Amino acid sequence: MEEIEKIIKNILGINPEILRQAQERLDSLTKPLGSLGRLEELAKQICGITGKVSPSLKNKVIFTLAADHGVTDEGISAYPKEVTAQMVYNFLSGGAAINVLARHVGAKVIVVDIGVAEDLKPDPKLIIRKINYGTKNMARGQAMTTEEAVKAIKMGTEIFDEELKNGIDILGTGEMGIGNTTAASAITACFTNKPVEEITGRGAGLNDSGLKNKIDVIKKSLSLNKPDPSDPIDVLSKVGGFEIAGLVGIILAAASKKIPIVIDGFISTAAALVAFKIDPKVKDYMIAAHKSQEGGHKIILEHIGLKPLLDLDLRLGEGTGGALGIGLADAAIKILTQMATFKSANVSEKKE
Amino acid sequence: MEEIEKIIKNILGINPEILRQAQERLDSLTKPLGSLGRLEELAKQICGITGKVSPSLKNKVIFTLAADHGVTDEGISAYPKEVTAQMVYNFLSGGAAINVLARHVGAKVIVVDIGVAEDLKPDPKLIIRKINYGTKNMARGQAMTTEEAVKAIKMGTEIFDEELKNGIDILGTGEMGIGNTTAASAITACFTNKPVEEITGRGAGLNDSGLKNKIDVIKKSLSLNKPDPSDPIDVLSKVGGFEIAGLVGIILAAASKKIPIVIDGFISTAAALVAFKIDPKVKDYMIAAHKSQEGGHKIILEHIGLKPLLDLDLRLGEGTGGALGIGLADAAIKILTQMATFKSANVSEKKE
Repeated sequence: MEEIEKIIKNILGINPEILRQAQERLDSLTKPLGSLGRLEELAKQICGITGKVSPSLKNKVIFTLAADHGVTDEGISAYPKEVTAQMVYNFLSGGAAINVLARHVGAKVIVVDIGVAEDLKPDPKLIIRKINYGTKNMARGQAMTTEEAVKAIKMGTEIFDEELKNGIDILGTGEMGIGNTTAASAITACFTNKPVEEITGRGAGLNDSGLKNKIDVIKKSLSLNKPDPSDPIDVLSKVGGFEIAGLVGIILAAASKKIPIVIDGFISTAAALVAFKIDPKVKDYMIAAHKSQEGGHKIILEHIGLKPLLDLDLRLGEGTGGALGIGLADAAIKILTQMATFKSANVSEKKE
Repeated sequence: MEEIEKIIKNILGINPEILRQAQERLDSLTKPLGSLGRLEELAKQICGITGKVSPSLKNKVIFTLAADHGVTDEGISAYPKEVTAQMVYNFLSGGAAINVLARHVGAKVIVVDIGVAEDLKPDPKLIIRKINYGTKNMARGQAMTTEEAVKAIKMGTEIFDEELKNGIDILGTGEMGIGNTTAASAITACFTNKPVEEITGRGAGLNDSGLKNKIDVIKKSLSLNKPDPSDPIDVLSKVGGFEIAGLVGIILAAASKKIPIVIDGFISTAAALVAFKIDPKVKDYMIAAHKSQEGGHKIILEHIGLKPLLDLDLRLGEGTGGALGIGLADAAIKILTQMATFKSANVSEKKE
């Protein structure tokens, strides 16, 4: 925990003077005041995070962390667990949705095996940082040890630091793990105290009886493990996942380095929730990309106080919504930095 | 009207067989069924419009039509009317929001003077097709003659046809015209029968007394001119604008050529409403980019039955929301055409 404490110490508040300067710049541009709405807010937030009034978003990175979940033994997913590994290979060959959308917005995808249940074939594009071969079945005991949870968070910070050497101006969170909406739902229930029924969704496509079973499994896991909401590491170790813990580390590390963090869907947002419980200051560094179809997602966004940019009924994960969010952030910064001012373009300002 | 009738005859329904084939393709891709939500619907719609299961969106074009409004004499805008011409120069030098966002999504901006109140300096990038030097003040009589309304629609179809020679795979509508939310509000009130108070917004930034005056002016214009909602040309000539009429022509021509039309904000959507009243079949060719802050925008979208993609509190016009919508359409088509299938990537399909 010592290394994590050290990172948290470096997470500072947003500079209000930079926000003021960014607003002044936005108001000088050839458009009615505030007429680009949330794009303007987004540009301002990115200025505040980076501490720059003219930030560059050249290096866009999406971290897609993959891990398996022992709770799949309880039949909580519509897809077999082998799909986690199969999808990692798909990420590496560039055929998955995240590859397509990352290319669309000019982002690099960093694929990490942080706990896939099988040994994956080595690939120069694959970072292997396995904490274990999937978590244990949380319906029968805790998903991972406390040491594993801390190690996975630390691993996230290391993965971030490694890529930071190549440059990161904005990042998106992403994940792959059959069964991970079950873990995300349990985390959400624990921290928000909302009914499991309201939080839990169909994941990759459960039918009614599958959904009922998933809800029962989550309830059982919570009552068996009794995760303590005042102790984020306890929650993470009892009902979390390695990819979720790794993303917690990435989020904390990015905030400590003043990098804007675009949060993807439900699982990423569950990681954001854990990071927020570790240090609420990370909230200011977060951009919620979208509102997914999983009920728990909206609950977390409201709990943290984040307003999603998009509402396109996405429920895929991988970082796909995050990629679209990065595209909007890019547009927002281009507005800030490339538009003419009333003065430079000789356009008359508002009457009065 | 004869030419317009000829175009309408070429607007056909969407091919259901293409929609079926597009759905089949989407369902074969490595993602849970339907998990990319509205991106999948959008891809399917574009297949249906173009009649191609693997459409290309290489040539993206935004038509930004500028014109002045005589009703500015009534003090209904927060900005002086000179801004219309000044902003045209800003479009030509590439410093406006639409230039920035069009570059962001790889779209070309076609700038047209279809009725600016002054003679603009010639520029190789400026298309001058002036119907008149701005409309007349609709609070004192009709905005334009019936002949002018028909001529402006026809001009829109010609502007479209001219650019079609360079290739158009998808288009966005855009406009500039100080005072044009007043015209758009009057059109909306006429066709939807909703109270003027509910429709009318602050435009580029009116204060409370300015808004009240704008509402009074719209009511006066409607009661004076009595536009007939069963006759779209009558409505357009009495309370419309040249840029709105031109966009009607562009929309009709694009639908007749099977080109997807991304509708921008309130003014563009008012043009879409007129086109829809001329021929309801155009609806299937329209993609609503966003929901703006002007109350009337939502009213038209619901009236036509269009669901906007984005909700970012934009209220700028020019085609800015349309540009972002084109970016999403591009992403949707890349998903359809670039993703691996379960078979090609050796990924296991859903259980059951």
